[in-house]
Amino acid sequence: METRERYIHAAIALLREGGYARAGINEIVAASGAPKGSLYHHFPGGKQEIVREALDAYTLAVGEYAARALAGASTPARRVRALFAAVAQRLEASGFRSSCAAGAVALDLDADLEAVRDAVHAFFAAWVALVAPHFPLRDPARAASFASLLLTAIEGGYVRGRAEHSTRALDEAAEWLSAVAERECAARPARGPQSRTRKR
Amino acid sequence: METRERYIHAAIALLREGGYARAGINEIVAASGAPKGSLYHHFPGGKQEIVREALDAYTLAVGEYAARALAGASTPARRVRALFAAVAQRLEASGFRSSCAAGAVALDLDADLEAVRDAVHAFFAAWVALVAPHFPLRDPARAASFASLLLTAIEGGYVRGRAEHSTRALDEAAEWLSAVAERECAARPARGPQSRTRKR
Repeated sequence: METRERYIHAAIALLREGGYARAGINEIVAASGAPKGSLYHHFPGGKQEIVREALDAYTLAVGEYAARALAGASTPARRVRALFAAVAQRLEASGFRSSCAAGAVALDLDADLEAVRDAVHAFFAAWVALVAPHFPLRDPARAASFASLLLTAIEGGYVRGRAEHSTRALDEAAEWLSAVAERECAARPARGPQSRTRKR
Repeated sequence: METRERYIHAAIALLREGGYARAGINEIVAASGAPKGSLYHHFPGGKQEIVREALDAYTLAVGEYAARALAGASTPARRVRALFAAVAQRLEASGFRSSCAAGAVALDLDADLEAVRDAVHAFFAAWVALVAPHFPLRDPARAASFASLLLTAIEGGYVRGRAEHSTRALDEAAEWLSAVAERECAARPARGPQSRTRKR
């Protein structure tokens, strides 16, 4: 892996564990295994710059992960379950010590971090834009609102899971929200819950 | 206010802004306005002890706040809206810089903080236990699961709101979940959505 990429990977891992405060320059360098001098070469803006870039890279990586989860599911209800299952799997694999980088940074923002806040906001917007089209609700605004609800529950599920050492909050949310998805899509004036908007 | 209480208040405010990392001993002392020497007199265990006690005090305060919000609402759907509105109001009043102390600490936990993790977990459990009886679903387990979903969405709504400087995620969740509450309570084999289990 290229040095620059190693820094980004290390920063993402630290952000997922403890937000902005955890991702100190020294911690990023130590976790990356790269020499310290070259961090400022790659990121002359220091901590805010590397965190911002790490969040941008994280946005792309999570987008790919979510797209894969959605691709394997054939109905809206199954898509809800697949998204939450993918999140639960990541949380559990980390021993409940690592969650969403954007979420952890969000709860660690202060007034000096507007550029970082923009990157967190952009992560949320990108996630909703990616996920919404997979839920053919009665109109695009309602689909976006439902995708946004899924994201809110995922971020909250991570919060709960980190403290509870359990995926239970995520599993419960998947149950409730897959039922909502099923009902919403059945209520469409279309060919029932399995119909695909793409077909016509 | 007594010195001990001033420390606890200062710790809660810092935890709400930036989790465990933000609530350093020096920061707590500075924010409290009390002399440093007396912090260790009141909390010989130092940072972990004061954070744990702050989370316990926060659990009681949020419980009272949630109970007041619920008391003013006459139907399950209105109770959902009242809970989210109370949260949105607190978030907005802080200029979107302060959220749930338990949530912020949750995303900041590491393996050395088991006692703190217990206090966060206890906060979540107490909230669900307090809120669930206000939702007369078809059985107590389902009511607890629904209350748990509300908590998950509130924690996620705080995460979103901190980054988005908006209560939109909370408002959206309130819309969707109040509709779920209404449908669930209407589906009970009872006297409709306004019926009270207590009456019989």
